Amino acid sequence: MSQQLVQRIVAELEAIPLIDPHTHINPHAPASKTLADILGYHYYTELAHSAGLPREQIEEPGIDPKEKVRRLVPKLADLDNTVQVSWLLEMCREFFGFDDDRITESNWEALYDGSAKQMAAGDWEQQVLRKSRLDAVFLTNDFDDPLTGFDTLRYVPCLRTDDLVFKLHEPAVRERLAKATSIEVGDGKSLREAIGRLFEHFVSKGAKACAISLPPYFSPRDDHREYAGVVERASKHIAGYAAGRRTAEGEPFGHRDTEQLVFNTLAEMCAEYHLPFDLMIGVNRRVYEGGVFQGQDLFDQRTSLILYRELFNAFPQVMFPISVLAQVSNQELVSYSWIFPNVVTNGHWWYSNIPAYIETDCRSRLQGVPRNKQIGYYSDMYKLEFALPKFAMYRRVLANVLAADFVVARGWPEERAVALGRQVLRGNVEQVFRC
Amino acid sequence: MSQQLVQRIVAELEAIPLIDPHTHINPHAPASKTLADILGYHYYTELAHSAGLPREQIEEPGIDPKEKVRRLVPKLADLDNTVQVSWLLEMCREFFGFDDDRITESNWEALYDGSAKQMAAGDWEQQVLRKSRLDAVFLTNDFDDPLTGFDTLRYVPCLRTDDLVFKLHEPAVRERLAKATSIEVGDGKSLREAIGRLFEHFVSKGAKACAISLPPYFSPRDDHREYAGVVERASKHIAGYAAGRRTAEGEPFGHRDTEQLVFNTLAEMCAEYHLPFDLMIGVNRRVYEGGVFQGQDLFDQRTSLILYRELFNAFPQVMFPISVLAQVSNQELVSYSWIFPNVVTNGHWWYSNIPAYIETDCRSRLQGVPRNKQIGYYSDMYKLEFALPKFAMYRRVLANVLAADFVVARGWPEERAVALGRQVLRGNVEQVFRC
Amino acid sequence: MSQQLVQRIVAELEAIPLIDPHTHINPHAPASKTLADILGYHYYTELAHSAGLPREQIEEPGIDPKEKVRRLVPKLADLDNTVQVSWLLEMCREFFGFDDDRITESNWEALYDGSAKQMAAGDWEQQVLRKSRLDAVFLTNDFDDPLTGFDTLRYVPCLRTDDLVFKLHEPAVRERLAKATSIEVGDGKSLREAIGRLFEHFVSKGAKACAISLPPYFSPRDDHREYAGVVERASKHIAGYAAGRRTAEGEPFGHRDTEQLVFNTLAEMCAEYHLPFDLMIGVNRRVYEGGVFQGQDLFDQRTSLILYRELFNAFPQVMFPISVLAQVSNQELVSYSWIFPNVVTNGHWWYSNIPAYIETDCRSRLQGVPRNKQIGYYSDMYKLEFALPKFAMYRRVLANVLAADFVVARGWPEERAVALGRQVLRGNVEQVFRC
Repeated sequence: MSQQLVQRIVAELEAIPLIDPHTHINPHAPASKTLADILGYHYYTELAHSAGLPREQIEEPGIDPKEKVRRLVPKLADLDNTVQVSWLLEMCREFFGFDDDRITESNWEALYDGSAKQMAAGDWEQQVLRKSRLDAVFLTNDFDDPLTGFDTLRYVPCLRTDDLVFKLHEPAVRERLAKATSIEVGDGKSLREAIGRLFEHFVSKGAKACAISLPPYFSPRDDHREYAGVVERASKHIAGYAAGRRTAEGEPFGHRDTEQLVFNTLAEMCAEYHLPFDLMIGVNRRVYEGGVFQGQDLFDQRTSLILYRELFNAFPQVMFPISVLAQVSNQELVSYSWIFPNVVTNGHWWYSNIPAYIETDCRSRLQGVPRNKQIGYYSDMYKLEFALPKFAMYRRVLANVLAADFVVARGWPEERAVALGRQVLRGNVEQVFRC
Repeated sequence: MSQQLVQRIVAELEAIPLIDPHTHINPHAPASKTLADILGYHYYTELAHSAGLPREQIEEPGIDPKEKVRRLVPKLADLDNTVQVSWLLEMCREFFGFDDDRITESNWEALYDGSAKQMAAGDWEQQVLRKSRLDAVFLTNDFDDPLTGFDTLRYVPCLRTDDLVFKLHEPAVRERLAKATSIEVGDGKSLREAIGRLFEHFVSKGAKACAISLPPYFSPRDDHREYAGVVERASKHIAGYAAGRRTAEGEPFGHRDTEQLVFNTLAEMCAEYHLPFDLMIGVNRRVYEGGVFQGQDLFDQRTSLILYRELFNAFPQVMFPISVLAQVSNQELVSYSWIFPNVVTNGHWWYSNIPAYIETDCRSRLQGVPRNKQIGYYSDMYKLEFALPKFAMYRRVLANVLAADFVVARGWPEERAVALGRQVLRGNVEQVFRC
Repeated sequence: MSQQLVQRIVAELEAIPLIDPHTHINPHAPASKTLADILGYHYYTELAHSAGLPREQIEEPGIDPKEKVRRLVPKLADLDNTVQVSWLLEMCREFFGFDDDRITESNWEALYDGSAKQMAAGDWEQQVLRKSRLDAVFLTNDFDDPLTGFDTLRYVPCLRTDDLVFKLHEPAVRERLAKATSIEVGDGKSLREAIGRLFEHFVSKGAKACAISLPPYFSPRDDHREYAGVVERASKHIAGYAAGRRTAEGEPFGHRDTEQLVFNTLAEMCAEYHLPFDLMIGVNRRVYEGGVFQGQDLFDQRTSLILYRELFNAFPQVMFPISVLAQVSNQELVSYSWIFPNVVTNGHWWYSNIPAYIETDCRSRLQGVPRNKQIGYYSDMYKLEFALPKFAMYRRVLANVLAADFVVARGWPEERAVALGRQVLRGNVEQVFRC
């Protein structure tokens, strides 16, 4: 397979303006201000820590941004093989004109100062969006986010619901919910009303999705338990939370029933408000408690989409764009998307977001899943600058697969392969999320 | 690696006449009559449904074949990336002289009418067999199939046993068994006699294998339960079925014991009658109950061949050609075949039957499993026309692996690599199934 | 990607002298004496048995070495596709000047006799070490090995602890422990003292690691059980073993608690004596009881590093080089090494040690794990001659990955890619094991 062919496809894909369907951008401060915003991304702090840098040095309270970068830079030598550091170099090259092949103790300061000057420009955010060809960026908003003070067409609201499902027993969460909705949740009925208000608010602000990340053991509905029983028990538990009751062990009780009730109520609201429900399946939180901020989560590969069987059957009218954390889950995702009309493949998430895994996963999806049911990629970024190198990585993998499996193996004309690429990169985002 | 090399190997492999060791062909109507027989294959109906076509439109009772194709064709545009649609095009090209690059609303009708004329030829079945170089085709026969009225050398009987193992508690199944064997099954002993009669009948008609598909949770023998106890309890349960007894919950009881007893009785008969026992491991039935016919099954990747440990030890004289549904099970299959003399790798099944997975699986098998213990491929087809594109897909993958891993990496002469390919494609089918 | 590039990288990697960080070499008889020592490796006997050779023929008591080879040779024709047989040919070519492309019934005897002459040379061991560029070789020593009579700088002791953790209830093991330490273990405290003595002895002899292989279900510490309780219960069980008590079923009781206590005591000693603790995770022993010696073990892919969560958190000062048996565990290994400072990737073990799996695993590690946390390869050999072909196989895969993912995809100069290869092949072995 000729590299010229791949390069031509990459060039065509680069011309496609993007909607990034999952990020953690703060719309009030979307772009970076210094290199510390970029090197502060957990991918760099956690890798530096894993390679030997003590957490205390990285996360010293009140540390000056430049000092933080000064401390991280020497560790980059141990990380330069990682694809994450290749993103860093690509950002520095593309945005800041950096042209060394590494960031070292002898060249970092010039880069830091020079880039800070560029980022200080009043239109830096616009520059980044333009250079990255980003038309719009989905957010991950807390359920009580007022969603004001930013352009919701550029920064598209998205209702993140982890706290509601997994922390409703925490008084702080119930207070935030009460404040956001003016409803004191005391049973299943008031829960439903409160969640309904959240959806109303989010949809009125242009929200395009509801989203949640889920642990490997979670199942929205149990094959062997009647859902009516869940509703009844969970309603009692919620009343118990409101009354401050706890079990003998001092823990609030009934989490599992409550989790299922809240989750299913969210799915019902997705149906009512015509929102896709993004499921990000498989993360165990706080596995490494001594880790840096956001660098503590891992996973258990022993999970299955069979846990979502009842859900997919119960909500045929809701689209479920699904991300899986374990690469071994990808074949299930391919197969469930091939069978269930309401299951859609979504991006390459976190520990599966390296070329070695993207390549296999991208190939199998393009070979087995209807082309209108694949959302190719999202950046998961915290700062705008990351979209460029992450999408670039994905486009290179995608171009290789399109060249090998479609142009060479099936004899497709290049433009037909590029059209397939365009659909998974952009077209399906518009279609699935109606934007 | 040069494409010329791969092409030369493909050409050599294409010359090998095939025995297809697992299909669902109806020997009384093996070939298609219209394009609806081909597009009606569940791979197309389920993908079209997954891509948005309502089941009711696809499965309208009494629908005319041509009308069915008319409804499916527009949906092909959403599926043209899939390898399944590439089979469709290859069939139309090779059998019907179709030479467009897609089947669309504007060209389908000519294709439909033209192909119908060709399929109406009296020798169409022979034409397909000849063009596909098919010497023989294994069937999947119900246990009460009389096996009469067809050439059993061409269409080789194979005893399918899912109903016996998993549905013996159903009166209809027991009635079919009684009718087929003249034995009323009322305990373990009469069960054994009845199953013995089935084997006698099948073997007398030239059957070459016993086969079953199994759910991910199934284990033929439990490590921690004595098998004698299973026999005793199951025998009582069977007596209970015969007497119409049910448990308190209204369910017939003891399924698990009965399943194990029937399964082990089948294995004993395989030993007695020298039949290989094809195990197809890992399918969950009816996961998507709103799906089209045969488009409802999925899987749980959390399964293991360790569940078959006691079986493989208990029946050293029985060959077990094994197919796994989850691609993550392939390494276990490679390893168990590398260690157990009675475990043989068998084909690339269903959701693992796409080039992205076949390639990895084929490579690991050829690198780790004795060459005389690998059955390369079967078509799993319902209509004869499918063997051609499916085997063609497999041969292309196989040729790439032979070229890269043997000719290039190990310096084998091409003819030696081709001989290895010939053995997994044809030789081992003859040797394992004694045909 | 040009083959010249790959060849140049292979040549550079071949020049690197090796420390082999995990083998089963007997330092009193490290090299082979006849071809039977090589063909007697379980990889050949088990594959020959799997391909049809009865165990009784292979393992006939008192069989002459030449007769053993004579019996195995005909079966090689069924195994010549395997990578294991490619090692055999490479050994014969490189060490014995064999230049046929197969070992057959007509050429094996000349090879046997010629090689026996070469192996009879007084400096054969030195010849093999030199030709294989082996500077040092780690051993796998029983806990009661006196570690005398060999050069511990060349053959580096390593404390293997499977018996202590999984067989402490066996009187023979407790006797060996008592003899080696002069301590009668009767509770947790005396256990700790005895294990302390073992570490003292091993470290005084230059041991560089503690090691263990673990079944898929094992967890060193349970999330939901307080470890203090484990200590207390296990201490009682140990007293029970010493007193010869057994449970009602005739089995010594409390294995699970004892396993955890011994394992954690080992980890504590690793901390105290600054030894890395090699974990080899995932093997089920004696799955095929009719198999040849060392050819009976398999695995269950349903395991997870989440089972080691508490351990990694409890012992931040201990390095854990980890090998996984199931290839599906590799992504967890990559991810846990990316997050936990004390988790290091270690080699490609057993059923994952074939190019098809090494390639994927090597790529993902180089893309996602800090470069100073990857031990590329060990041979796991029983006889010195195996290091050469096994490391050669790994270097070829590594060179391909370095060429494709670093030189071509990232534009690295070749020498930079080679330096990365050098670090995973040699540098990290020195750094992690302090040798």
